[in-house]
Amino acid sequence: MIKGVLVTPLNVISTPGGDVMHAMKESSIGYAGFSEAYFSQVNNGAIKAWKRHKEMTLNLVVPVGKIRFVLFDDRNTPNNQFQELIISTDNYCRLTVPPMIWVGFQGLLDGGSMLLNIANIEHSPHEVDKKNIEQIEFNWNN
Amino acid sequence: MIKGVLVTPLNVISTPGGDVMHAMKESSIGYAGFSEAYFSQVNNGAIKAWKRHKEMTLNLVVPVGKIRFVLFDDRNTPNNQFQELIISTDNYCRLTVPPMIWVGFQGLLDGGSMLLNIANIEHSPHEVDKKNIEQIEFNWNN
Repeated sequence: MIKGVLVTPLNVISTPGGDVMHAMKESSIGYAGFSEAYFSQVNNGAIKAWKRHKEMTLNLVVPVGKIRFVLFDDRNTPNNQFQELIISTDNYCRLTVPPMIWVGFQGLLDGGSMLLNIANIEHSPHEVDKKNIEQIEFNWNN
Repeated sequence: MIKGVLVTPLNVISTPGGDVMHAMKESSIGYAGFSEAYFSQVNNGAIKAWKRHKEMTLNLVVPVGKIRFVLFDDRNTPNNQFQELIISTDNYCRLTVPPMIWVGFQGLLDGGSMLLNIANIEHSPHEVDKKNIEQIEFNWNN
């Protein structure tokens, strides 16, 4: 596990008419403050990679579909470290990613997937580093 | 419009691999603080009604499907007031509901719909009043 990364199982409560699915509480493990919540849709097979936030802590939940997350920590070069995790409605949990970790993700379900990010700062291009997908070598096809 | 209720259009940003859909910022109109975010699924045709929160301000977003919201304000009896609104990914906006308004909602899409509530207090049964669906007369079939 990469230092500072948390994977927290979330409750799903069965109610008439449709489930209630927990995402985040102020009292939750990994909560880092609230400044913005947004959704990102991921088409089946699509890869969004790579981004590194310099200030934002990500709190990622997958209410729809199935998403592979790949985290890459190059803070201690040459001891670089990958962490891979598949989150879905069947493995319903929250992924907390501290700043300075490279993040990529891939949609793994026909019909599309969706993540919610509950972030401690509002989106700003000034705190985001980007790399093209091939700049961090990872086998997305396995 | 019921006093205190807000309907705020939200941006959808087209990006390769899938859209990014705004939900809420700390600086957004209607933001009342963050204590909990949770999802509620709504099966097609299902009705979840009625609940009234005594302290919680609801901020409701529909990232999946199509939901009919019905609000009922009986704070000024006998001048009771209904407000009805359909929110979907095609009419993507945030519905802010202040405390003391009765809320019901209905799924309107095959395959199910989902809402996200960004709430200023954590869920507590002590601040929720409930009524059975027939206790507030509304024609859900029109």
